Amino acid sequence: MKMPDKPIYITSPLLPSLEDLNRELKIIFSSKQLTNMGNYHNLLEQKLKDVLKLKGSLSLFNNGTIALMIALKVLNLAQGSEVITTPWTFAATPHCIVWNNLKPVFCDIKRDSMCIDPSQIEKHITKNTSAILGVHVYGFACDVEKIETIAKKYNLKVIYDAAHAFSSEIDAIGIGNFGDISMFSFHATKLFNTIEGGALAYPDKNLERQIYNFRNFGIRNEELVEEVGINGKLNELQAAVGLLNLKLFENEKQKRAKLKDFYDKTLSKIIGITIPKLASNIKNSYQYYPIIIENNFWTSRNELYDILRKVNIFTRKYFYPLCSDYECYKNLPSANAENLPVANELKNKVLCIPFYGDLPISIAEFICYKIAGN
Amino acid sequence: MKMPDKPIYITSPLLPSLEDLNRELKIIFSSKQLTNMGNYHNLLEQKLKDVLKLKGSLSLFNNGTIALMIALKVLNLAQGSEVITTPWTFAATPHCIVWNNLKPVFCDIKRDSMCIDPSQIEKHITKNTSAILGVHVYGFACDVEKIETIAKKYNLKVIYDAAHAFSSEIDAIGIGNFGDISMFSFHATKLFNTIEGGALAYPDKNLERQIYNFRNFGIRNEELVEEVGINGKLNELQAAVGLLNLKLFENEKQKRAKLKDFYDKTLSKIIGITIPKLASNIKNSYQYYPIIIENNFWTSRNELYDILRKVNIFTRKYFYPLCSDYECYKNLPSANAENLPVANELKNKVLCIPFYGDLPISIAEFICYKIAGN
Repeated sequence: MKMPDKPIYITSPLLPSLEDLNRELKIIFSSKQLTNMGNYHNLLEQKLKDVLKLKGSLSLFNNGTIALMIALKVLNLAQGSEVITTPWTFAATPHCIVWNNLKPVFCDIKRDSMCIDPSQIEKHITKNTSAILGVHVYGFACDVEKIETIAKKYNLKVIYDAAHAFSSEIDAIGIGNFGDISMFSFHATKLFNTIEGGALAYPDKNLERQIYNFRNFGIRNEELVEEVGINGKLNELQAAVGLLNLKLFENEKQKRAKLKDFYDKTLSKIIGITIPKLASNIKNSYQYYPIIIENNFWTSRNELYDILRKVNIFTRKYFYPLCSDYECYKNLPSANAENLPVANELKNKVLCIPFYGDLPISIAEFICYKIAGN
Repeated sequence: MKMPDKPIYITSPLLPSLEDLNRELKIIFSSKQLTNMGNYHNLLEQKLKDVLKLKGSLSLFNNGTIALMIALKVLNLAQGSEVITTPWTFAATPHCIVWNNLKPVFCDIKRDSMCIDPSQIEKHITKNTSAILGVHVYGFACDVEKIETIAKKYNLKVIYDAAHAFSSEIDAIGIGNFGDISMFSFHATKLFNTIEGGALAYPDKNLERQIYNFRNFGIRNEELVEEVGINGKLNELQAAVGLLNLKLFENEKQKRAKLKDFYDKTLSKIIGITIPKLASNIKNSYQYYPIIIENNFWTSRNELYDILRKVNIFTRKYFYPLCSDYECYKNLPSANAENLPVANELKNKVLCIPFYGDLPISIAEFICYKIAGN
């Protein structure tokens, strides 16, 4: 056990060897095709379909946010209609709703999974509701069946923000198979990364053409522009990084599983800490390690954050503030704290602690030692 | 002179040596900061300010389209208001207007510069007009003074799509100093590239904070989200490519200047070809080499395109179709061909021919030989 001599963050990016990357760059540079859906891009799309166990299609993007913007666009939701989501997510989720001229409606979360609470969804449904945007936060999983039932009953589209959920599974089914479209993020902070990047997964292969178009300015060919598209292209260098990282992420996951075992065992002994437990049918993506600092813990979440920071451990109050607290959303009727009691309670209690394969066990021990109040 | 044995395209990307890039990647990989406004990103912003001779600020983006979307957003134009632009541009220009809930209004172009015709702008101004979006097409330059005068008279914002105009100058002033905001593209096809990428240049430094925010989800710091932002971040690998390419682009420009001299001299002898001439106060970016195939040329533009294609020369009908011909815009009142006589004439006459530093002179000779009707 030792105090780190440099800052320790909650994650550290998975990286291929420079030697391996250089070999691929040589091929890319000599081909002169650096972007615009090249060979590496297309190969990565193919491989990801397998890795994510998708029955449908997958389209790569330059980041998860642009992917989610296009997911909402391609579903052709009525202008100005309402999308039910949660405030327990990264800023990109509601922002993408607004960029599509749609209105975010915040629904509360469940205390165990911190995903949208299906029992709270129906009360938010109005004649203007067009979709439910669930977030598989931390790589935990939404109640996809219950959400599906509600969506069918009210004829709503279902989108999942699976930014945290790379390789998560529900009943051994790849998480990207649920809903109409799921968005994955491949940002440097994610289990699997392309430095920046993302993808859409969708069962309906008929969406492929339109998603391709929207990602590439709506251009179908040199003389045909079909949609008001955008530039969502992932370039060849990043696709090459992705192809190499695909060989590494399983090993990273195993290391994280071991670290999780250690944290679970050690932290569960400390009074006032709740460790979220996944249902047995959920396969974790090991994206983050959140803990809940309950009222009977020896200090507050904020003080614990400060204490750890002073000893070079940079945790994250993830998610504080809630999206419903942002200036741009706080005046929405659904942003009212009374509507979101669980999210508003947990925003002051959750802390994500350092969680990545190469975190030395001595530092993990030190983190637990400090959390225990030493 | 010889016929190429493989396809020759209109451009070929400028690339650093793999050895140089590998040295930088080593530093980036060991720092573990792969994105989110890192050292390479910030250094490239500084250097670009000098290279582009900017008096104001510059902000990098992951591509020019996202940059232009944010340019329009940050100027806070009235929702649903009209932006006067031209149909003689890449699809991204009008698309960014629409993504901001603004309406594109197409104005005709000048025959010499193929940029917006200032004498045609005022007739499009209504009480709903909020901005003029000029395009410095091919790296040629808009009549910035005349546009400025009109904008002042009607209190309009001025945005320039300078995607083609890297290092162009007007009266020895960097082209990014004109208007309220200019967008540069650093796509692989551009004179200077970061594989994909772009930037906004703007004289008003007060916009810096907001542009920073919009590019990064509106996040100011860990606990403050200020805007409905997006992910427009350029990562460190691409910034490193940019820093290396900055050392190379002047040499590339010199090579293109020589090629232009050769083309000018050779093609001007052919009856029915017009070569656009820049005003003497404009410094060219040498982005593209467009020629106009006039009615007295020995064949049509389309036939010339096909003839060249058969001998491995892939030219571009740049711009055919016009943006005003796209399905998504053709029903706008301003898309009417009668409103856009010059653009509609030139769309059937312009051809961009291969134009990059490493184009062998023997192939340039072959291209001219074929264009001459041999």
